[in-house]
Amino acid sequence: MTDTLPPPPDIVRCAYLELVVTDLAASRAFYVDVLGLVVTEEDENAVYLRSLEEFIHHNLVLRKGPVAAAAALAFRVRTPGDVDVAEAYFRARGCRTERRAHGFVTGIGDAVRVTDPLGFPYEFFYQVEHVERLAWRYELYSPGALVRLDHFNQVTPDVVAGCAYLEDLGFRVTEDIEDEDGLVYAAWFRRKSTVHDTALTGGAGPRLHHIAFSTHEKHNILAICDKLGALRMSDVIERGPGRHGVSNAFYLYIRDPDGHRVEIYTQDYYTGDPDNPVVTWDVHDNQRRDWWGNPVVPSWYTDASLVLDLDGNPVPVVDRDKPSELEVTIGADGFSYTRKGDTEKGFKLGTQL
Amino acid sequence: MTDTLPPPPDIVRCAYLELVVTDLAASRAFYVDVLGLVVTEEDENAVYLRSLEEFIHHNLVLRKGPVAAAAALAFRVRTPGDVDVAEAYFRARGCRTERRAHGFVTGIGDAVRVTDPLGFPYEFFYQVEHVERLAWRYELYSPGALVRLDHFNQVTPDVVAGCAYLEDLGFRVTEDIEDEDGLVYAAWFRRKSTVHDTALTGGAGPRLHHIAFSTHEKHNILAICDKLGALRMSDVIERGPGRHGVSNAFYLYIRDPDGHRVEIYTQDYYTGDPDNPVVTWDVHDNQRRDWWGNPVVPSWYTDASLVLDLDGNPVPVVDRDKPSELEVTIGADGFSYTRKGDTEKGFKLGTQL
Amino acid sequence: MTDTLPPPPDIVRCAYLELVVTDLAASRAFYVDVLGLVVTEEDENAVYLRSLEEFIHHNLVLRKGPVAAAAALAFRVRTPGDVDVAEAYFRARGCRTERRAHGFVTGIGDAVRVTDPLGFPYEFFYQVEHVERLAWRYELYSPGALVRLDHFNQVTPDVVAGCAYLEDLGFRVTEDIEDEDGLVYAAWFRRKSTVHDTALTGGAGPRLHHIAFSTHEKHNILAICDKLGALRMSDVIERGPGRHGVSNAFYLYIRDPDGHRVEIYTQDYYTGDPDNPVVTWDVHDNQRRDWWGNPVVPSWYTDASLVLDLDGNPVPVVDRDKPSELEVTIGADGFSYTRKGDTEKGFKLGTQL
Amino acid sequence: MTDTLPPPPDIVRCAYLELVVTDLAASRAFYVDVLGLVVTEEDENAVYLRSLEEFIHHNLVLRKGPVAAAAALAFRVRTPGDVDVAEAYFRARGCRTERRAHGFVTGIGDAVRVTDPLGFPYEFFYQVEHVERLAWRYELYSPGALVRLDHFNQVTPDVVAGCAYLEDLGFRVTEDIEDEDGLVYAAWFRRKSTVHDTALTGGAGPRLHHIAFSTHEKHNILAICDKLGALRMSDVIERGPGRHGVSNAFYLYIRDPDGHRVEIYTQDYYTGDPDNPVVTWDVHDNQRRDWWGNPVVPSWYTDASLVLDLDGNPVPVVDRDKPSELEVTIGADGFSYTRKGDTEKGFKLGTQL
Repeated sequence: MTDTLPPPPDIVRCAYLELVVTDLAASRAFYVDVLGLVVTEEDENAVYLRSLEEFIHHNLVLRKGPVAAAAALAFRVRTPGDVDVAEAYFRARGCRTERRAHGFVTGIGDAVRVTDPLGFPYEFFYQVEHVERLAWRYELYSPGALVRLDHFNQVTPDVVAGCAYLEDLGFRVTEDIEDEDGLVYAAWFRRKSTVHDTALTGGAGPRLHHIAFSTHEKHNILAICDKLGALRMSDVIERGPGRHGVSNAFYLYIRDPDGHRVEIYTQDYYTGDPDNPVVTWDVHDNQRRDWWGNPVVPSWYTDASLVLDLDGNPVPVVDRDKPSELEVTIGADGFSYTRKGDTEKGFKLGTQL
Repeated sequence: MTDTLPPPPDIVRCAYLELVVTDLAASRAFYVDVLGLVVTEEDENAVYLRSLEEFIHHNLVLRKGPVAAAAALAFRVRTPGDVDVAEAYFRARGCRTERRAHGFVTGIGDAVRVTDPLGFPYEFFYQVEHVERLAWRYELYSPGALVRLDHFNQVTPDVVAGCAYLEDLGFRVTEDIEDEDGLVYAAWFRRKSTVHDTALTGGAGPRLHHIAFSTHEKHNILAICDKLGALRMSDVIERGPGRHGVSNAFYLYIRDPDGHRVEIYTQDYYTGDPDNPVVTWDVHDNQRRDWWGNPVVPSWYTDASLVLDLDGNPVPVVDRDKPSELEVTIGADGFSYTRKGDTEKGFKLGTQL
Repeated sequence: MTDTLPPPPDIVRCAYLELVVTDLAASRAFYVDVLGLVVTEEDENAVYLRSLEEFIHHNLVLRKGPVAAAAALAFRVRTPGDVDVAEAYFRARGCRTERRAHGFVTGIGDAVRVTDPLGFPYEFFYQVEHVERLAWRYELYSPGALVRLDHFNQVTPDVVAGCAYLEDLGFRVTEDIEDEDGLVYAAWFRRKSTVHDTALTGGAGPRLHHIAFSTHEKHNILAICDKLGALRMSDVIERGPGRHGVSNAFYLYIRDPDGHRVEIYTQDYYTGDPDNPVVTWDVHDNQRRDWWGNPVVPSWYTDASLVLDLDGNPVPVVDRDKPSELEVTIGADGFSYTRKGDTEKGFKLGTQL
Repeated sequence: MTDTLPPPPDIVRCAYLELVVTDLAASRAFYVDVLGLVVTEEDENAVYLRSLEEFIHHNLVLRKGPVAAAAALAFRVRTPGDVDVAEAYFRARGCRTERRAHGFVTGIGDAVRVTDPLGFPYEFFYQVEHVERLAWRYELYSPGALVRLDHFNQVTPDVVAGCAYLEDLGFRVTEDIEDEDGLVYAAWFRRKSTVHDTALTGGAGPRLHHIAFSTHEKHNILAICDKLGALRMSDVIERGPGRHGVSNAFYLYIRDPDGHRVEIYTQDYYTGDPDNPVVTWDVHDNQRRDWWGNPVVPSWYTDASLVLDLDGNPVPVVDRDKPSELEVTIGADGFSYTRKGDTEKGFKLGTQL
């Protein structure tokens, strides 16, 4: 970045994800029949889904395509003019941009898509079709009702470079994971007043790590697990449920029919003050990723979804050349501690394998 | 068993466990300060603890001793005369018995202790000091309040033989785990109208697998995990939290300072009808022990507490000579299926290691 | 009662209610579409419903008829022979009885119905068709899932006489409400190990006060309220949700299309010990019926469902000639205290009207 | 307002309330021992309290004084310069202002207090002492743990005039209650992305209606009720618990030892988008204030706390000269409907009195 960059757009929040899926019917069954997202609109090529408290057209677009990938991570901006600002900002950064006055997907108006400096397809829009906010429609709620889109999580080789870019774009860091040398393994970035609208996880990228939806209470997440068991789909549960150290939220990670990762999330904290304290976690603290010290499955570190460029082709993936969080905590967190300085091991699966 | 055995006592429920601990202060801190059990009475050698809805003197006795072990699994019987019946029953079985008119521990009256055919120290009593049932004393509740003793779980080499004995003693099987040849790996036994008062887990025994306390709701169990994290004691969490297949209950396993295992448990189902259907699980069903398919840590299968004979000496442990559940589901359940006949693997830690 | 009465049957639990409804479609919509009970079987005249953890054919029969009423309060007995015992017991009491080898309703075998000394239609049966226990079928759960039949509640003019009868029939009192002169206004009776299988509420009777179903957690009850609001049916909520003093359970009372009262109930305590302590509440204690002191609506005291005799005719209702609980706590509990001896009033609706 | 008003300060959120109490020990017992707020600091004249997820010095100051009243409703602004902006803004409005470089209370730096156009004592500050955010300190959580300050609610005679002022000050309306003629009875205003930072309720004012704290889940609110029952303080429960129509949040209203009203609140929805849809409720809709149609106690409409001017004297109260919400829904909501156009009454207490 240089001093001469124009101002960034005023981003309100993460708003929707466009996801390419290889079997639209299978994906629809997963997101609608199992997870209970609401269909705003659909045709033979795409399904537009929203959560129960959403009033914009969609939070997730499932689009049929040949290669499973994330086509756009879309952010809402504060004014129509902020789309212009976004376009100018990324052009000044030398990024490829594409502007469409009528939007890239149904329900969204004037929007700009960019391939950002990290290689991710970001979209910025203001105009959007309003639909009914179903918050009071309790007759539609399932035991695991998803009520909001909470955040994205992106995999990138160089988290430090990514932080500099996202902070310049107007995001604020709320938490991060570092080692004793100050190397950053992951960081969380917010515009709305939650712990994040997106996060960067160190690894081979650009890839999408996951999209996260919120429930109201922890039992809603447990109900999703119970239902997956009843449907004999428990093997889509990759990690959790558990309590995060980072964000203090209660979580579950599941994998959709293409392997795209979805987090179900609830109860992080308010971060809206300008001097909200940043929380830094030690990469060797075994409670940073799971407050109860339960092991992180290796695939959670290694797997992620491809992302597409503006032509719809997968962006080539570059390896991380810095230490990986998986490796420095290897043996399912075997190098990690529960109590700093204490070598006692406890009864965890990670410790036993 | 023979036809000539006298009738068994009318057992009401599992009532209390006497547990020998090597560091009384450390154990008291664990059960009282961390778990919130209520001290009915204590002295320098023993602490008498109860759960919040209990009206008998105690559900757990922590007694200081040189070797960590279970000294007695005590059951309440329906009448004072049932203590005589119990004594006669076990004598007829050739078991060693000891009767004490004033009980073996504070708060309990006339009782008989036996070393039962499986080598376990069982106690039967009717007389007991009543204390305040604290159910309405919400000012005493913690977020993870333990409200009832739910069950014991015992490790024994020959589950089939154990079943025959416990059924003769008047217990009813509610669920079990079998393989395709009908070999029983574990079974659950009830007197009160829950899934169990005790269970038999196949393995080297006689040993106590765990004692289980109930909470009202699932969030209470999550709160215990959160508190253990806050106290930097998350490494005492051995397994869970999760949903059992067997019993359909929500569970957590933790280990006390001596390694004694404690389960926190909630929401199994009513079993009180005389023809309550027995549920049989396939040992290869990966949802039998955890409905969400999460792996069972090896120590959960291999570790257990010694039990004492009537002289206070540890009962020698005999290995199981039949296939072990751990081994037939080895690789953290790698031989198990989510969908019978389906070899797809999913994203589980067990599958990845 | 006299010393010469034969022994009573061994009652296991309250098992089902046969309810006459005047508009079967409307009632079906209420119990199935709104409350989520499961249809085991139905025809043009009757719907057989069960809760999610039930394995017997039904817990509730809705039968179309000209007058809304309770046709039978059915209890399961321990053995087939207990049906004979029940028949003999009530004949010895001079009660009218009717025995049907193939049962009175679909799914139930050999049964006897009686008009009991209080005028209620009691049924006793052992034989019943087993159906799938849906406990693990989480894909069928709604946010307010009803999992068990918990109890009945009956209105009778003379609670003291009713207690003597029910205790002779083998029920045990768990709690009651009395005044300073020992007059009993209501009492709770159990066979299974909960606070009650049935209760007697003083008032004009014989009438059915309500039937109660259990949920797993308190949020399930709140979800039913939320759904009723969403369906613009909130006016069927008569009382609650709230915490009972008596039973310590969390509750809600709603009224079905005929005005039959249904309680949704969760988390009372274990009562299965032979010396389970009886809890006596002062009728002037404003926390006895609602632990939070919220007012009891007058209709809750005055309204109830007619019951039928063995010919299907409503049993005439006799007034209570002793003081009514409503009146001694009149002004929406205005004569009641929060703290005994303290005349301070607080901010309750009852106090303000 | 005129075109010549200077720009308003950039308000971040409601931050703390200074409350004058007549018995500091009694108030401390209420807020600390009963409700579990955390003492940041205290002396003989004041107690500084915060919620568990707060990182600024306090959310509530209890200050000993002769007359129970609200001394300041304090808002945090985005920058130090916004305090200057606020001072200029209110001076331009002709309001009395007072600036203190070292703040009005411990823990707060440079601040301005004003008597605003509605007569309320508003404070604006940026500088504040940071303290530990206790979010992860689960060993400190009670079953009813309060985690955030959510909002204030103010009583004012002319809600329409109040709306114009607060919108000019930069607040956005999220919901309101109107009658068929468009008369506004109450309105909700937000800066942070929740339903409100403050609200205006039509009535005699200026008075403080209540301060609201958030819990994580609904059971936390129920736990507060249970504890109040256990402490024989249930008469401090004025209204609820229940589900709001407005805000869709779950709520409880209690009264402190001086009669100051406190709401406990959880789970409203995200409102941060610039075009967040305003929800307008019909004043005759009986589900607007309680989604379950439960009656609103008259004191909830009529009682409120005095507010102080900058000299510490109570601001005189002016009556509302427009129709009151209590009266147009009188008879405990007897003029209200559950289903528009339907005159059926249902079983509610309000309908029966």
